[in-house]
Amino acid sequence: MGEFELLARIRERLPLAGGRVRLGSGDDAAVTIPGGATATSVDAVVEGVHFRREQASLAQIGHKALATALSDLAAMGAEPGEAYVVIGVPPDLDEDGCIALLDGMATLATATGTSLAGGDVTRATELFLAVTVVGHAESPDSFVSRAGARPGDVLVLTGELGGAAAGLVLLQGPLRARQLEPQPRIGAGMALAGAGATAMIDISDGLGGDSGHLAQQSGVGLRIDASAVPIAAGASEIAASAGGDPWQFVLGGGEDYELLASISAERLDEARQAVREAEGIALTEIGEVIAGEGVEIRLPGGRALEPGGFDQLA
Amino acid sequence: MGEFELLARIRERLPLAGGRVRLGSGDDAAVTIPGGATATSVDAVVEGVHFRREQASLAQIGHKALATALSDLAAMGAEPGEAYVVIGVPPDLDEDGCIALLDGMATLATATGTSLAGGDVTRATELFLAVTVVGHAESPDSFVSRAGARPGDVLVLTGELGGAAAGLVLLQGPLRARQLEPQPRIGAGMALAGAGATAMIDISDGLGGDSGHLAQQSGVGLRIDASAVPIAAGASEIAASAGGDPWQFVLGGGEDYELLASISAERLDEARQAVREAEGIALTEIGEVIAGEGVEIRLPGGRALEPGGFDQLA
Repeated sequence: MGEFELLARIRERLPLAGGRVRLGSGDDAAVTIPGGATATSVDAVVEGVHFRREQASLAQIGHKALATALSDLAAMGAEPGEAYVVIGVPPDLDEDGCIALLDGMATLATATGTSLAGGDVTRATELFLAVTVVGHAESPDSFVSRAGARPGDVLVLTGELGGAAAGLVLLQGPLRARQLEPQPRIGAGMALAGAGATAMIDISDGLGGDSGHLAQQSGVGLRIDASAVPIAAGASEIAASAGGDPWQFVLGGGEDYELLASISAERLDEARQAVREAEGIALTEIGEVIAGEGVEIRLPGGRALEPGGFDQLA
Repeated sequence: MGEFELLARIRERLPLAGGRVRLGSGDDAAVTIPGGATATSVDAVVEGVHFRREQASLAQIGHKALATALSDLAAMGAEPGEAYVVIGVPPDLDEDGCIALLDGMATLATATGTSLAGGDVTRATELFLAVTVVGHAESPDSFVSRAGARPGDVLVLTGELGGAAAGLVLLQGPLRARQLEPQPRIGAGMALAGAGATAMIDISDGLGGDSGHLAQQSGVGLRIDASAVPIAAGASEIAASAGGDPWQFVLGGGEDYELLASISAERLDEARQAVREAEGIALTEIGEVIAGEGVEIRLPGGRALEPGGFDQLA
């Protein structure tokens, strides 16, 4: 397989969804007309670390690589623009395999209005994918960083947690897709940004850890009522049957790619409606922002967890 | 080594050179204020494919990974803006090793006015680096693609060729740096864009191959006078002593990262002066753009090579 031939085949399949791309893959660089401000994130997945080819199809691996990168844009409230993809191709992955990876990405790219605008293919010992995504907004103030939460804000969460961790246990059934084909909350992120979210982060490492990042970067404390967190149907049962604590799934399990945001109480209803209109999912109040530092998580029955403490629940 | 701790150490060392970055590494995404148009390119290097740790220092590996990416921006005539770096870290590379890689990049980033604005670190079996670079211009028309060469244009080349291939043979002496620490021709690229270059490409795969890309994408033919191509001092001798044809070094050897451009004859003097002022290097007329297709390379003594023919010289 020649690199040039593969690149040519790949170029034919790259969907240029947006109107921002003036010159796509195949020149020295892609040329785009950005918005007034851009948000850029990179994410890499490596075989044996982030996925196994026995457990996921190539299309699912491609989907997830792009989905995790787009989830970071969702957490900024950015409008997806372009994605650039590096594929490290091991000896046992043929040209059709590369195309299958890319088709998994292309389907999600089309669904989210993302242009696959460029890439690079290289030989490698193990399969890896590195994805750079660029999102746009009118001005830098339109983006929601992790650093703007203010005491008095309420803490809200999109969708439900626990599904991806349970899907990892099962790798079968309806929760399997939650693990293998996560959906970045692009619409919800833009809706929350538009409704005045003061800080936002995506739940990739687990609610316990990611809420800590938001608290630290905002210089505030968070108080989370664990019993208010919506749990994916079946996740508690799977946790129990696997001998685990359901709270470990909810608080420590990552890869749900829901969004955690802070927002003033006055705008909560507006945000809830905007998220429902944008993505058809619920926005749930799960806690509050307080002065101080750290995250206090209250479990049913009066137990309280300090940051990091959720790890000891397992 | 925890990923978060390494990322924190890396963040402290990231130079934010430009004024475009509003939010750097450490949030869900970096936020920048782009120019009216952006040029974006991705490049990956993998141990055993593109470099060996026995033959290059970690700082040199970091330098080269960024340099090859920036060379693509140079070939667009773009002003460097931001770079985003993924490092795949194998078990035998410790935290100090990652920092050394990054310092090699940071030195070149500072020298070229590039902000290292974000990145990702992941475990891997083999060391790899994936670099995304973003360059800026006022409008998309300010960039020089590969596709604008017109019959009647002259063909010009920055600097000298053959040094990197000879440096690969030697991996010692002055040409060694040419192979291990290539300099992207950022200043020359912007100067050529400003002087009206009609098409441009960087010489990463060799003059023979890269001139073919420019000809094909512009829909023109090229006639190159090989004897006009400046050859790096010592390269011919090294080629001969290694039993090779010097023309193979010049025409087939890649990684010199000089720029090949087409430009109207009336603006040649202006371009030559602009390149000298920007980068202190020569711009040499090495051929012409003609109607038709393909690249004809005339060697001294009347031999003529067709595209691809240079491979048979070795």
